Amino acid sequence: MINFRPVARVIAILLAVVGVMMWTGVPFSVYYGEDPMPLLLAGALSLLSGGICFLIKNPQGIPIRKREGYMIVVLSWVSMVASGMLPYLFSGVIPTFPEAIFETVSGMTTTGASVLTDIEIQPKGILYWRSLTQWIGGMGIIVLTVAIFPLLGIGGIELFAAEAPGPTSDKLHPRISETAKRLWFIYVGLTAVLFFVLWALGMNKFEAVNHALTTMATGGFSTRNASAGDFSPVIQYALILFMFLAGVNYTVLYLSFKGRFSDVWKSEELKAYSLVVLLLVVLFTVRVYYATGATDLEQSFRDSFFQIVSLITTTGFVSADYTSWSTSLTIICFVLLFLGACAGSTSGGIKIIRHLVFLKNSYLEFKRIVHPAAIVPLRLNGEIVQGRVINHVFNFLLLYLLIFVVGSVLLAAMGLDFRTALGAMATSLGNVGPGIGKVGPVDNFAWLPGHIKLFLSGIMIIGRLEIYTVLVLFTPFFWRLN
Amino acid sequence: MINFRPVARVIAILLAVVGVMMWTGVPFSVYYGEDPMPLLLAGALSLLSGGICFLIKNPQGIPIRKREGYMIVVLSWVSMVASGMLPYLFSGVIPTFPEAIFETVSGMTTTGASVLTDIEIQPKGILYWRSLTQWIGGMGIIVLTVAIFPLLGIGGIELFAAEAPGPTSDKLHPRISETAKRLWFIYVGLTAVLFFVLWALGMNKFEAVNHALTTMATGGFSTRNASAGDFSPVIQYALILFMFLAGVNYTVLYLSFKGRFSDVWKSEELKAYSLVVLLLVVLFTVRVYYATGATDLEQSFRDSFFQIVSLITTTGFVSADYTSWSTSLTIICFVLLFLGACAGSTSGGIKIIRHLVFLKNSYLEFKRIVHPAAIVPLRLNGEIVQGRVINHVFNFLLLYLLIFVVGSVLLAAMGLDFRTALGAMATSLGNVGPGIGKVGPVDNFAWLPGHIKLFLSGIMIIGRLEIYTVLVLFTPFFWRLN
Ligand SMILES: [K+]
Ligand SMILES: [K+]
Repeated sequence: MINFRPVARVIAILLAVVGVMMWTGVPFSVYYGEDPMPLLLAGALSLLSGGICFLIKNPQGIPIRKREGYMIVVLSWVSMVASGMLPYLFSGVIPTFPEAIFETVSGMTTTGASVLTDIEIQPKGILYWRSLTQWIGGMGIIVLTVAIFPLLGIGGIELFAAEAPGPTSDKLHPRISETAKRLWFIYVGLTAVLFFVLWALGMNKFEAVNHALTTMATGGFSTRNASAGDFSPVIQYALILFMFLAGVNYTVLYLSFKGRFSDVWKSEELKAYSLVVLLLVVLFTVRVYYATGATDLEQSFRDSFFQIVSLITTTGFVSADYTSWSTSLTIICFVLLFLGACAGSTSGGIKIIRHLVFLKNSYLEFKRIVHPAAIVPLRLNGEIVQGRVINHVFNFLLLYLLIFVVGSVLLAAMGLDFRTALGAMATSLGNVGPGIGKVGPVDNFAWLPGHIKLFLSGIMIIGRLEIYTVLVLFTPFFWRLN
Repeated sequence: MINFRPVARVIAILLAVVGVMMWTGVPFSVYYGEDPMPLLLAGALSLLSGGICFLIKNPQGIPIRKREGYMIVVLSWVSMVASGMLPYLFSGVIPTFPEAIFETVSGMTTTGASVLTDIEIQPKGILYWRSLTQWIGGMGIIVLTVAIFPLLGIGGIELFAAEAPGPTSDKLHPRISETAKRLWFIYVGLTAVLFFVLWALGMNKFEAVNHALTTMATGGFSTRNASAGDFSPVIQYALILFMFLAGVNYTVLYLSFKGRFSDVWKSEELKAYSLVVLLLVVLFTVRVYYATGATDLEQSFRDSFFQIVSLITTTGFVSADYTSWSTSLTIICFVLLFLGACAGSTSGGIKIIRHLVFLKNSYLEFKRIVHPAAIVPLRLNGEIVQGRVINHVFNFLLLYLLIFVVGSVLLAAMGLDFRTALGAMATSLGNVGPGIGKVGPVDNFAWLPGHIKLFLSGIMIIGRLEIYTVLVLFTPFFWRLN
């Protein structure tokens, strides 16, 4: 049976962290002359719940098994959401449960879809908390993908562990906490650098903080109704650069930081990621330039670059309506909702590495057909990928698409039109934010009925936790004894 | 290098068969007082080309290797199309090349998409030839999937060979021609039975012949503008039954014919196929009944049953506009374009067995995650499926979807709207016939520009020949020496 004692201990710590994080918003409330009580109260409640969980002792020091692992991961996100929505409710910014749950899930999963129709009139303290939920979520994802998923065998992540030699010897330091700390250092560092860059380029401090937090989390919550479209071109270029960085595997970022560029260069995923962005930018720029009347090449380039990087990294900032250019570019943007950037980053979606495994295998499959007796292994970064891992990756890809299809049918049955159903499902599952149809780049999710918001919240969590982690809880294998 | 001598021999025989088949339409022309010259001339030209190919001697009796195998399969379809379009051109029914190519490819691949806007005014002899192209295509597919693809290692078809024990001993008779003859016997027999059934139920002889030919081929060409919607309910039920049968693996049909029902019962694909149809019929009937005002339960049931079987078997007959019921049913119908019926039948699409491999593996993957040390094999019909086969099946599924996505983007770039691009691509790749959008069940393909028709013709052939057969010709592995 599941042993909930060690689970409770992890939840206790998480709730405490969330509580303290909420209080960091109090100075903003005070500075802007707003009521700090919602954040104070929500933080206190979160700490109190954490304290209660902490009382559940684990006297025999029962170890955490795989089974408890899945439970911890899923309950971590659920409890972070349960606690994280309190500031919205207490402040009255989002007074109803389905909406508050949606906004918090969208934050903690770094999705960035919003139910707020007018963001700019909201209290600054609450907006800061909204941005912070994404940053906390991103922090959680880094430790999940780099340290915990490999232990749990989720998503063929064995690949990423072997992907780049780690900072200490040939592997990342085996202890989870050490690994996490190193990568968080990069995460926190890049966030700080981006804050100063944005501030230097003309954002005010409050907006610089918010956009630094949500960019590095590939979250995409903005403090402006028009998202990144409101800012100057140079700020948009800065956001492009940091969105791109946020889509890189944190292990690779750490290697760059250590100056080990020859190791960085070995990452095939990084090269594929860069190449895809490059090719798409050229294609889009040309098409957008003519579609918009061939008036401003720089803007066509910038709009294309921004939207492509924003979609591939699943950040979801918007600086132009990508559904207004042409049908083929709309379909490509829709497909980008499924791409994802590098594994081991905070980006959502399928991730480049899985596509790379598929494409390489497709090519090799032709060789296998022509030479049936030959052994044709698939190599990634010079290492042979085991058949079992390829199988797992393929299964992930197909399961992802199956969930997308089934979810779209259900959304249509709940009353959404064809395009909106596809868009809402793809963007939720991929943790992107904007979709197509009536949840496109210039729309928001406020108009959806409550039960659809709750449904999409579930989809965001399933997508964020790499599908298997959540769904395994619903299989008999998980609950059966031994 | 490729040895074209044995290739030429096969093409010669095929062209001769096509030529003779054309002449079987002459009696119809004469009976209906039409000019028989187009069919006579086209048949003669086809026989003549066959004769010329026959002159290419294969003196050393060079054996056919795998490489020549792919070439033979692809060139067979190309030459059948080149010859098969002559009656359209000579009669002036379809006087232009892109249109004539499209209609012939659509026939020979058993797709059934048409460029004819008014079918009923066309000469009967040509309409008979049009139906016959599908029946010839279906005959080709049976021998391909049961006898040739397993030899070429295409599409994980090792599965189907092992799927049901064959008629003689444990395997189907190893000689291709024997196997093909046995299955063709079933094919011809069922076509004859269906002809008599349709005639007995009130169709005239000409229409009974045509619909018998195109039903058993899961082709879907009709002699009526309104397709099957023009016929009486009892005829529609007969078509449902025979479409369903046409979607069953011919090896299984042969076993049933031999009375070996316990072997038939072992086919998991057959059970899954029946179950999917059953569940969808219940779901659709209820929804259609209410969507159409809850007036006629029998018609709701019949319309649902007909459209579902027609789409799953990729026949593409239409008795009601499935895009008019509701958004969720439209999406489900769109998804059905990807399903396909049983492998080893004449149906197109992905085929149930591949979906079954995916779904079973997905379920087992959870077990593998929870018990990483355990060996968890995938079984089908009681036999373990090898990892290499699973890999191949998964790769097929993903490649199929990739081609669908890339093709949709290209179609959109050529000017089609979002829904029409998706619909045209899905229905062409799956060899179904009707799609969604402006190529929906009540539309046809006449309005598309010539280059899009040629593009879709290529897609139909790629889909019909299980992707790999065609694409392998474009890889270096195929052309490299040794
Ligand atoms: K996002
Ligand atoms: K068809």
